[in-house]
Amino acid sequence: MKIGILGTGAVGRTLATKLIEDGHEVMIGTRDVVNTLARNKADGYGNPPFTEWLSAHPSAKLESFSDTAAFGEVLFITTAGLAALNAIDLAGKENFSGKIVVDVTNPLDASAGMPPKFAVTLGNSLGEQIQRHIPEAKVVKAFNTIGAHIMVSPQREEGVPDLLIAGNDADAKKWVNDLALSWGWNSTVDLGGIENAYWLETFAMTWIVYAFNNNSWNHAFKFLRK
Amino acid sequence: MKIGILGTGAVGRTLATKLIEDGHEVMIGTRDVVNTLARNKADGYGNPPFTEWLSAHPSAKLESFSDTAAFGEVLFITTAGLAALNAIDLAGKENFSGKIVVDVTNPLDASAGMPPKFAVTLGNSLGEQIQRHIPEAKVVKAFNTIGAHIMVSPQREEGVPDLLIAGNDADAKKWVNDLALSWGWNSTVDLGGIENAYWLETFAMTWIVYAFNNNSWNHAFKFLRK
Repeated sequence: MKIGILGTGAVGRTLATKLIEDGHEVMIGTRDVVNTLARNKADGYGNPPFTEWLSAHPSAKLESFSDTAAFGEVLFITTAGLAALNAIDLAGKENFSGKIVVDVTNPLDASAGMPPKFAVTLGNSLGEQIQRHIPEAKVVKAFNTIGAHIMVSPQREEGVPDLLIAGNDADAKKWVNDLALSWGWNSTVDLGGIENAYWLETFAMTWIVYAFNNNSWNHAFKFLRK
Repeated sequence: MKIGILGTGAVGRTLATKLIEDGHEVMIGTRDVVNTLARNKADGYGNPPFTEWLSAHPSAKLESFSDTAAFGEVLFITTAGLAALNAIDLAGKENFSGKIVVDVTNPLDASAGMPPKFAVTLGNSLGEQIQRHIPEAKVVKAFNTIGAHIMVSPQREEGVPDLLIAGNDADAKKWVNDLALSWGWNSTVDLGGIENAYWLETFAMTWIVYAFNNNSWNHAFKFLRK
């Protein structure tokens, strides 16, 4: 199907690569196409210029946020968390209506360096902010609780982890569940409505704090149901 | 060794039972001994009166918070989270100095019914509040991320979970680690200093939200390190 990904960073690229492998048509959206194509240096996280990724994945299209949001039957939001609402505004709220929107963002403020600071409060998680911003969309918080490379390749040496998700629409969560299982996740753990996105965003901080304290980037959580 | 447990609820009783089985001398502290012994009905969580537990565990002593804190070489705080600082005041801050203090509390406000509301903000977790309140104590946040019966009997049908801990004192965390392993935990996952207690308290909410949404009380998390 046609999938639009907002954001050209490591998360957007990793998801795009996998979705193309899966046979989907993928468009990636950016704030300024000319600017994104002109960059010739690694970004602040050490990711190579986007053009390198694009030349290795010629079937992918890079377009504006609005073209991408209009194109996708399903949309992934992978921008910097604190830029997500503005990206949606630039993309045009109407382009999200009725669609499954997978919110992969985290509310991280890296303005004072690493590790990033957590930048939302209870009742105002990014997942909730995004759902309130595009009330006609079927927002599912997912894939935000682990590093990008684990999202699409979850199998660990020590076992197969489980993916936390939250959202208001059961069919949208079913779609994300099926995608996650096809990528090798053991299961999805449905935490309920989008008001529970806060616990997924704090869960991401658990991953991040452990990562920075231990210089570990390959850990994940398995859920034991009983 | 001599262990003091502040709090007579399900968590305090469960830990006391296990620590007695382990061969420790256990004293349980309460706000008002006469009142606790006089209760003859189940509490708000359906726990039977404390005297039932006490008559089944005659080696345990029930005393005031202050006698209990003075008695214990290691102390566990298992009161209602929002009552913890007051319990420490009643116990006498000086009785915590230099001791390992295992903080099992969660910042839950059940005044509007179940499920309880999360009642602290980032930078002000109960673990941090308690450590700031008794700066001479070696506070370790631990055992707060799962239901009481899992604390002392972690083995699940689907595997052996791992226990998140946080605290400033390495020796105190080592003591908790050894205790957890002796109770059957796969490992402890050290999240760093007590400033990370917030992520353990939000992690507890992940457990609680799933529990209430699914009427599930036996789930736990396994940590895949690689």
